[in-house]
Amino acid sequence: MNLHLTRRYEFSASHRLHNPAFTDEENWRTYGKCNHPYGHGHNYVLEVAVSGPVDLATGMIANLTDLDSFVEHEVIEPFDHVYLNENVAAFRERVPTTENVCIEIYNRLRNFPSAKLERVRLEETSLNSFDYSGDSGEKQS
Amino acid sequence: MNLHLTRRYEFSASHRLHNPAFTDEENWRTYGKCNHPYGHGHNYVLEVAVSGPVDLATGMIANLTDLDSFVEHEVIEPFDHVYLNENVAAFRERVPTTENVCIEIYNRLRNFPSAKLERVRLEETSLNSFDYSGDSGEKQS
Amino acid sequence: MNLHLTRRYEFSASHRLHNPAFTDEENWRTYGKCNHPYGHGHNYVLEVAVSGPVDLATGMIANLTDLDSFVEHEVIEPFDHVYLNENVAAFRERVPTTENVCIEIYNRLRNFPSAKLERVRLEETSLNSFDYSGDSGEKQS
Amino acid sequence: MNLHLTRRYEFSASHRLHNPAFTDEENWRTYGKCNHPYGHGHNYVLEVAVSGPVDLATGMIANLTDLDSFVEHEVIEPFDHVYLNENVAAFRERVPTTENVCIEIYNRLRNFPSAKLERVRLEETSLNSFDYSGDSGEKQS
Amino acid sequence: MNLHLTRRYEFSASHRLHNPAFTDEENWRTYGKCNHPYGHGHNYVLEVAVSGPVDLATGMIANLTDLDSFVEHEVIEPFDHVYLNENVAAFRERVPTTENVCIEIYNRLRNFPSAKLERVRLEETSLNSFDYSGDSGEKQS
Amino acid sequence: MNLHLTRRYEFSASHRLHNPAFTDEENWRTYGKCNHPYGHGHNYVLEVAVSGPVDLATGMIANLTDLDSFVEHEVIEPFDHVYLNENVAAFRERVPTTENVCIEIYNRLRNFPSAKLERVRLEETSLNSFDYSGDSGEKQS
Repeated sequence: MNLHLTRRYEFSASHRLHNPAFTDEENWRTYGKCNHPYGHGHNYVLEVAVSGPVDLATGMIANLTDLDSFVEHEVIEPFDHVYLNENVAAFRERVPTTENVCIEIYNRLRNFPSAKLERVRLEETSLNSFDYSGDSGEKQS
Repeated sequence: MNLHLTRRYEFSASHRLHNPAFTDEENWRTYGKCNHPYGHGHNYVLEVAVSGPVDLATGMIANLTDLDSFVEHEVIEPFDHVYLNENVAAFRERVPTTENVCIEIYNRLRNFPSAKLERVRLEETSLNSFDYSGDSGEKQS
Repeated sequence: MNLHLTRRYEFSASHRLHNPAFTDEENWRTYGKCNHPYGHGHNYVLEVAVSGPVDLATGMIANLTDLDSFVEHEVIEPFDHVYLNENVAAFRERVPTTENVCIEIYNRLRNFPSAKLERVRLEETSLNSFDYSGDSGEKQS
Repeated sequence: MNLHLTRRYEFSASHRLHNPAFTDEENWRTYGKCNHPYGHGHNYVLEVAVSGPVDLATGMIANLTDLDSFVEHEVIEPFDHVYLNENVAAFRERVPTTENVCIEIYNRLRNFPSAKLERVRLEETSLNSFDYSGDSGEKQS
Repeated sequence: MNLHLTRRYEFSASHRLHNPAFTDEENWRTYGKCNHPYGHGHNYVLEVAVSGPVDLATGMIANLTDLDSFVEHEVIEPFDHVYLNENVAAFRERVPTTENVCIEIYNRLRNFPSAKLERVRLEETSLNSFDYSGDSGEKQS
Repeated sequence: MNLHLTRRYEFSASHRLHNPAFTDEENWRTYGKCNHPYGHGHNYVLEVAVSGPVDLATGMIANLTDLDSFVEHEVIEPFDHVYLNENVAAFRERVPTTENVCIEIYNRLRNFPSAKLERVRLEETSLNSFDYSGDSGEKQS
């Protein structure tokens, strides 16, 4: 009996969307006000979904305290209250669009030992979210 | 690397659930107070999910401004602040249940050129929603 | 020891903003798309706040079942799933703006027998709300 | 044309996480403060998703009043305002973790006659939810 | 320049509404299913509002970490994951209605040293909340 | 008949809490991770409440399109997608705590011509908000 557990986290960060290989005009056309030189920020809502069988003795898929400490260490601590472009190494080379932030978070969480990572959903504002389920087609819902 | 982008929109409209082929008694039994002659209305929340690979240069699946102007033109402009039964041609022949409104919106959005339409979710009230992923079984989550 | 109790209700209705004393052009300039001839609708969220001392024996300001049946009878039953302009007598003579609907609801609830009506808040969409605390200045927060 | 309908319900209950086969120390290490002897409680949010073709005459997958009365009878009535460990027979033998409550609800709803049960999602707090789609792998999203 | 700061907390607890001075029939008539012998529970949402002038040097009313540790110590730690009737001394003598829980929390927080307590709002479910601003009439909004 | 109209807006910005008159150690003790050198960001939710009598002809306190264009021009346009410390002149001299941002917004909106500004509420995260009603005691709720 396989269930999904979805857990919600939040972090606040700033970013700037800018590709140094683009001209100023291309950056503006692509990113609009998100290209503003000093950056801007968001309260990101992160949902992490893991799956697994329910342990007969405990009645649980995984212990929430294990998931919380894994996500805290891998994502919240390095991503919260920072400027993503500078403070997270991966975004010195890749534009920190919410798409790329979502993939980076997925990759940091894929080895959670107690259950299988199914999906990472990242909400940039109350109107936008992105979700990623890894690369193999059949896992994507 | 295929991601899903989900974007949220809202529109306010009125409708009446009534099938002219039914007797008054059948209409009442089927639709209850939704059959009330003068109609009633809702704030519909629409979520549009599209998918695609992340462009290496821009870091994006699709430009949100393209999606917004497509949805605005195809759905929000014709559906917002109208009486669906009269003002949207499709609902002169089909009862504008939220199911049928959801399918109509899906059909209007399926040719979005910049990414693949995955799913349309339409919330009628905070307690009900409907989602449609098109007709082929394997696309439905 | 005086507390406030706030209780949340929802109803779905349609309306049209139109003043027959205005020219078509004035109606359009004043109400925009809310003047659309066939009307449109909303899920209205209603919050009713009442106050009173806490009864020492029951530990309650008022019994929620009393408040619910009063609000159900006075407001939800006549306002839910109707076209306000036609189906609620008050709006045959007054434009059913959310302001006027809010005042009408306040007047229908002001004689709640078990506690003092403090405030009626009516949310038209997730972005707009109106609140009314009656006419005497000192009651308004 | 197959759609999903998702409907939201709420119930308030208390529970205690405790496995009598564990030592006190194991119970505490596994369940933390959820093992507190007198129990504690939650407002559970339940989402029930069913699917089916849209009936051409009614424009509906299933009548919401049928779904509501089925869920009310099978789940809300027995689970609302109770102590799950004592008042629901299934939890005299299985720890009422949200995982196990979710599976129990799924099993009570799987024979809904008017549409196919797709998924049960149970939210324990605003930060945690669990979802179950039954046992066969291919149904799980 | 006086501002209000409102901070949101959550705790999960169970309670039973029962007055031993009432007959069984009076308890049932007063409290309905909330009188159920084994109790039931809620996720309580607590909002604490404090006010004060903005410190010119720090730009803050009060340090959130001070408010958080005060509320954690006075309320969250003793109220979270407990059975209020048994585990909080005050409710051995007073029925733990949300009204009484709200007053008890207000009294525990009124001596917050860094800013003036203005109001305590306690949400029992998404449909009900109670707020208390202390006993002197002029402080009540 | 005086009503309040509350309208909700959102903007995304970044800021850094840092007082140049403090030592590094004082800044860290006061602001914690909000003092991080590159700043961080939020989705700010702004609620603007205005009051006035209901116009008998229009049934409205003020035209929402007037309020929207005033708030857009005075606040959203200069505050959205910027780094508050650099891009809004007022915050070159005052630390852009949410308290100070709230007061600055109030001052920019106080001369709204069509209704009386009552209150500005600014939500920094889903857990914190600040509200300001101007300086004269009697206006504060």
